[in-house]
Amino acid sequence: MTHADTPRATRPADVALLDTARALDAADPLRGHLAAFAEAPGVTAYLDGNSLGRPLRDTADTLASFVRDDWGTRLIRSWDEQWMALPMELGDRIGRLALGAAAGQTVVADSTSVLLYKLMRAALAHADGRTEIVMEAGNFPTDRFLVAGVAAEVGATVRWLEPDPVHGVQLDDVRSVLSERTALVSLSNVDYRSGALADVPAITAAAHDVGALMMWDLCHSAGVVPMRLDDWGVDMAVGCTYKYLNGGPGSPAFAYLRREHQGILRQPIHGWWSAADIFAMGREYAPAADIRQLLSGTPPVTSMLAMQGMLDLIEDATIDRIRAKSVSLTELAVRAVDELLAPLDVRLLSPRDPELRGSHITIGHPDFREVTQTLWAEGVIPDFRFPDGIRLGLSPLSTSHEETVAGVRAVRDALEARAR
Amino acid sequence: MTHADTPRATRPADVALLDTARALDAADPLRGHLAAFAEAPGVTAYLDGNSLGRPLRDTADTLASFVRDDWGTRLIRSWDEQWMALPMELGDRIGRLALGAAAGQTVVADSTSVLLYKLMRAALAHADGRTEIVMEAGNFPTDRFLVAGVAAEVGATVRWLEPDPVHGVQLDDVRSVLSERTALVSLSNVDYRSGALADVPAITAAAHDVGALMMWDLCHSAGVVPMRLDDWGVDMAVGCTYKYLNGGPGSPAFAYLRREHQGILRQPIHGWWSAADIFAMGREYAPAADIRQLLSGTPPVTSMLAMQGMLDLIEDATIDRIRAKSVSLTELAVRAVDELLAPLDVRLLSPRDPELRGSHITIGHPDFREVTQTLWAEGVIPDFRFPDGIRLGLSPLSTSHEETVAGVRAVRDALEARAR
Repeated sequence: MTHADTPRATRPADVALLDTARALDAADPLRGHLAAFAEAPGVTAYLDGNSLGRPLRDTADTLASFVRDDWGTRLIRSWDEQWMALPMELGDRIGRLALGAAAGQTVVADSTSVLLYKLMRAALAHADGRTEIVMEAGNFPTDRFLVAGVAAEVGATVRWLEPDPVHGVQLDDVRSVLSERTALVSLSNVDYRSGALADVPAITAAAHDVGALMMWDLCHSAGVVPMRLDDWGVDMAVGCTYKYLNGGPGSPAFAYLRREHQGILRQPIHGWWSAADIFAMGREYAPAADIRQLLSGTPPVTSMLAMQGMLDLIEDATIDRIRAKSVSLTELAVRAVDELLAPLDVRLLSPRDPELRGSHITIGHPDFREVTQTLWAEGVIPDFRFPDGIRLGLSPLSTSHEETVAGVRAVRDALEARAR
Repeated sequence: MTHADTPRATRPADVALLDTARALDAADPLRGHLAAFAEAPGVTAYLDGNSLGRPLRDTADTLASFVRDDWGTRLIRSWDEQWMALPMELGDRIGRLALGAAAGQTVVADSTSVLLYKLMRAALAHADGRTEIVMEAGNFPTDRFLVAGVAAEVGATVRWLEPDPVHGVQLDDVRSVLSERTALVSLSNVDYRSGALADVPAITAAAHDVGALMMWDLCHSAGVVPMRLDDWGVDMAVGCTYKYLNGGPGSPAFAYLRREHQGILRQPIHGWWSAADIFAMGREYAPAADIRQLLSGTPPVTSMLAMQGMLDLIEDATIDRIRAKSVSLTELAVRAVDELLAPLDVRLLSPRDPELRGSHITIGHPDFREVTQTLWAEGVIPDFRFPDGIRLGLSPLSTSHEETVAGVRAVRDALEARAR
């Protein structure tokens, strides 16, 4: 069947939404950045930038130039000339542009999973007899699996929070389990399903009130939700760079460790890059006293290239303007869901208040597994989430309002086609 | 001062060496592969391919095409279409071409350091009361630091071997510390300084005789020294892909875990990629029963691209012919050292018998720190090793015999220039 047989663009609700979207795009101070991203032939709406950000138009050249002019020409000399410092330089840059972190507290390395493990272990090793870790039962699997594993290793207990799935973890949920036994509270800032935004300063303060350490998973925040980690007293954070930092598939993660904890909280994977003097090759391990102690093996240089162009864009756009556009995009998406999808029994599974959500929304319908397959084949790409959710990720620098409406309309069209 | 004032090419020893080198290159069945590597402007001898292999001529295009046609066009769909399987597919390929490992026992992931940690912890968690780990005191720092850290974590003791530094670990060294208390023997196949080659089958059998597990670090072997891990009964191995597998700076490592241990020996970093069903997002962690349990976070796809072209070359060349050329190159290098450098009091710090060494040799002289700086500035690139060693890494597919002689001559010239 084709879509040509139903002139949906002429429906009043569609026309009104499209007009609104075009007006918002015309007034968008960041619209100029849309052209910085590579075109994807056949893709009419990419709504999964929160799983994998798109490459920039010049990323292909960045990687090719790196091979020719850097790796291929300077060869091993590039380690001394520039690569050695890259994990810390990139970390500082992410810290400054997106995290509200002064230099010397953020590094790029490994994967989110490995960094979560390192920091959880570091926290638990200095727990002064405290034996409990607070974690949400609906957190992203890697966070949950890791905390359960680490707890079993060190003889700690996990206190699982089970908040309302749409609105996510609230301050009172956390307070209800905090005690002088709490060693670490480990939560996600943006819920990977609902997009619900946790109150970082309030929850961090509550953890500190009982003497616990606070770690935030910023995977779905970094680059879209402004953070002030230094101001808020956050102890540790991790996040990934292949979502809103557009680092490419499997680009390394970042970790933040507050300066006052460095040299005290130490991660357990004592690779040579975590040593005080990497090339001393000494007999005994002496850990680096600074943020470099979070490294282990040789930094993944090739995977650290693509994100640098995106950081240039973020620097130019500024994180506050990115957040403003993110709110505008999710507001329009919610309106489009209300108008086009609610009549088809689609549920909104995200907070209605834009201040309470990150840069994606999730909607639910029993047919969404099949609908996602239809959409993907048509070049409309959202994310399917078990059991029956579609996640619409709106990456502010690469997504337009019109694209957002097109995505929601495509969901409507696919649902209607199934009903016929 | 210039080098033009001494016409060294006309010295009889130089002429004879150069003639030999050219004759060997002319007869080299793998000489056709030299042209597959990118030219490095200004570099006349690259003798550090054992630290960082060169890119292939088409690696820049490989990466650019990946960005344009795969990441940029297929976007998130590429995970399903091809990236999910990449860690196992690449692992299988490395296993088949270089390790003598049947499919399903090798994965590409993380860094050597992180994989060493995972496997050491996995081994020690099933030690049945055994409390000792055997490690060489002169092993690469990351191996030593990690084993000391893991031993401290789990309450084990490290039995440090201190073999002759030129010839490395011998079977009798290992036997002298093995007992029913030995849980794990963890050694390097090729010594990162001397190039000395350990006897994998004999030492593995000795470890098994006392009921211990055997792990080999193959960083300086993979791609140049043929392995038969399956035949030799090796339990675990790790290695890196940025040396003789030319994966680029910080490309991920590989790990081998013998099939019979899978589902029993389990690594502790329970990221979502190590779970039985990655996307089930279930409440409880259920580890994958196969080799995938060694993964943790999202695989570093971009860093896994460059090595694939090199694996094509290795497949075409075959590991046995690569080893034969490696022996030919190191033999010529030793002869050149004997003839050109021994008269200047340079010591050979590697085994003389080519069957007892890998694909690099190390030479020593008190002036080598300064000599290395001179050489690097001139485009002759060996590796300096504290305190006074120069390591000549001879990567068989990208290094010619003439280049090898040119490198040794440059060392001689630099030493002579300092003496004047």
